[in-house]
Amino acid sequence: MASRTNGGSSNGPVDKGADFANYFCTYAFLYHQKEMLSDRVRMDAYYNAVFQNKHHFQGKAVLDVGTGSGILAIWSAQAGARKVYAVEATKMSEHARTLVQANNLQDIVEVIEGSMEEVVLPEKVDVIISEWMGYFLLRESMFDSVICARDRWLKPSGVMYPSHARMWVGPIRSGLVDQKKNDYEAAMDDWYGFLEDTKDYYGVDMSVLTRPFSNEQEKYYLQTSLWNNLHPNQVIGTAAVIKEIDCLTASVNDILEVKSSFSSAISMASTRLCGFAGWFDVHFRGRGEDPAQKEIELTTAPSSNNGTHWGQQIFLLHPPVHVDEEINLDVSFSMNRSKENHRLMEVEFDVKISKPSGKMLPPINKKFYIE
Amino acid sequence: MASRTNGGSSNGPVDKGADFANYFCTYAFLYHQKEMLSDRVRMDAYYNAVFQNKHHFQGKAVLDVGTGSGILAIWSAQAGARKVYAVEATKMSEHARTLVQANNLQDIVEVIEGSMEEVVLPEKVDVIISEWMGYFLLRESMFDSVICARDRWLKPSGVMYPSHARMWVGPIRSGLVDQKKNDYEAAMDDWYGFLEDTKDYYGVDMSVLTRPFSNEQEKYYLQTSLWNNLHPNQVIGTAAVIKEIDCLTASVNDILEVKSSFSSAISMASTRLCGFAGWFDVHFRGRGEDPAQKEIELTTAPSSNNGTHWGQQIFLLHPPVHVDEEINLDVSFSMNRSKENHRLMEVEFDVKISKPSGKMLPPINKKFYIE
Repeated sequence: MASRTNGGSSNGPVDKGADFANYFCTYAFLYHQKEMLSDRVRMDAYYNAVFQNKHHFQGKAVLDVGTGSGILAIWSAQAGARKVYAVEATKMSEHARTLVQANNLQDIVEVIEGSMEEVVLPEKVDVIISEWMGYFLLRESMFDSVICARDRWLKPSGVMYPSHARMWVGPIRSGLVDQKKNDYEAAMDDWYGFLEDTKDYYGVDMSVLTRPFSNEQEKYYLQTSLWNNLHPNQVIGTAAVIKEIDCLTASVNDILEVKSSFSSAISMASTRLCGFAGWFDVHFRGRGEDPAQKEIELTTAPSSNNGTHWGQQIFLLHPPVHVDEEINLDVSFSMNRSKENHRLMEVEFDVKISKPSGKMLPPINKKFYIE
Repeated sequence: MASRTNGGSSNGPVDKGADFANYFCTYAFLYHQKEMLSDRVRMDAYYNAVFQNKHHFQGKAVLDVGTGSGILAIWSAQAGARKVYAVEATKMSEHARTLVQANNLQDIVEVIEGSMEEVVLPEKVDVIISEWMGYFLLRESMFDSVICARDRWLKPSGVMYPSHARMWVGPIRSGLVDQKKNDYEAAMDDWYGFLEDTKDYYGVDMSVLTRPFSNEQEKYYLQTSLWNNLHPNQVIGTAAVIKEIDCLTASVNDILEVKSSFSSAISMASTRLCGFAGWFDVHFRGRGEDPAQKEIELTTAPSSNNGTHWGQQIFLLHPPVHVDEEINLDVSFSMNRSKENHRLMEVEFDVKISKPSGKMLPPINKKFYIE
């Protein structure tokens, strides 16, 4: 064996950036907090949700689940909360506490280091605020912890911030489909050169491993979802809501699996169906009997000028399919947590493509991994 | 909270390459095996060690610790071993078995999936062969497992392949010192812009976090060792052996800590001491009473044309120190496993710099992390 993982050092041969990732992979790093705090779409939505709905906060008890640097807790206090409990599992809690003091809110905001599942509060709260959303909403999301917090600590009349969440899927075109195919082919070319060298120089024929190597590379380049901020004109047909979550009532079971069938009409002349994109939005609507004065939406949909750090998750189809206006897609979508690796999500697309004439193109079935 | 770790998807904003690293971070990926199998310096050394010392293998029982794709086990069999036990902890064992069969060696090579600490062999062996070396020899190395294998399964007369290992440190010059300083300064410039925006747009003063952010970035950019393949002319003074390991006798305790004091004479006129590089070599010498017919060396020292995937580990000094020929460095070096994170190594350099006149420059003390 040798070089020991790729996690190693920067400037390495294989693992550019891996070091960076390993180093900042926990929320205990300010660098990562800064990335999230610099996301204007995210920040504006929460800021407006709080300050344009002060009636939900004035004189109230608030719980911030996963407070990170403490920004939502501080805003809640600034909007008039009587008391804010800011729970954070990582050492970032120490920075949050420092920040709360520097902004002279230590009498209102109480930073608690601990996991939401174990924390004990001295009272039930009127509002739970949390920025719990992961890539494509549910990837490594904290929603389980938010549900736990709600069931234990939210008053029966309490309000969730955000109150609703939706997942979307839409058909797309993207040059990534060619790029990833090229990457895959380059990796295979390289493999064949490697096979020759190993046979010639070292007397061992490794060609029997070509198939597993190809499978491994295919999985990596072609079956793993990609992060991207798409331009809206890359969405080539109608997008569909594949999941709606009411944050006040959803259970953990409700989000273990996402299953949806939907139709999508191609709306662009002579283009390529290169795959699908998945994104989400959340809404701040308050509660039926205690609604928001001003409803706020936070969307991570493709946008020409409001990209987010969440971007969209891209699922590429190889080879892309030539499509035209009035073509219709019937899509069955499912997403599950991987049995082998809980962190991993497995996604499956079943696509039936019908022409206006009623003629069907060959159906597509593809599996993907969200890592 | 938000984007959930950097481990995510390729093409992401923060985490280029992180996906790649996560995907291939275990030895169960052929891609990673291929990287190691493509390292000519590594391959040539082991190939020559085996085939130029066939007397150690002919008719003998051999144990390959961490066989990976099985290459060393196959060579051992090709060199005439009677029996080869090839132990591998990851699923790579399945590929190794396939490869052994494809090369028609299944009667000699037995691939065993399991951890070396738990595997039971039917006999003691004459040779233990293993490629166990990590970055700077000991970073995440498998040497513990090799020691365990030796103590349990090597005959009293047995031979270790390799038989000896050494760690080296030498003073270097490198433009990386400027590059990393620039990276750090750019990160701080960016932070100050972020502070202004957050205050102006969102009413929160985060300047109290400037110091911890700066510490975090400094640790990342300036105190974390780097992977690099240096050119020999970047080594500006004498390099020293800081550790010698006899693989036949070393204990786990012997490698827990590395401590060394050495002198280094600068051998280059008017240059900059930008830091130190650490590397290793291993030797295949057989055993005192049963020596190699042909001693082989595998070195990862700076080389103009024989770079390895191990490269060297670089420890940068900020700011660099102007030095000249005949300047002498007295260096105290120590390396320990981190208490908080066993995977991490902590390194400390104490450097005293004396001019030929006897005059001393200000001493340097720096801590580093090998990740």
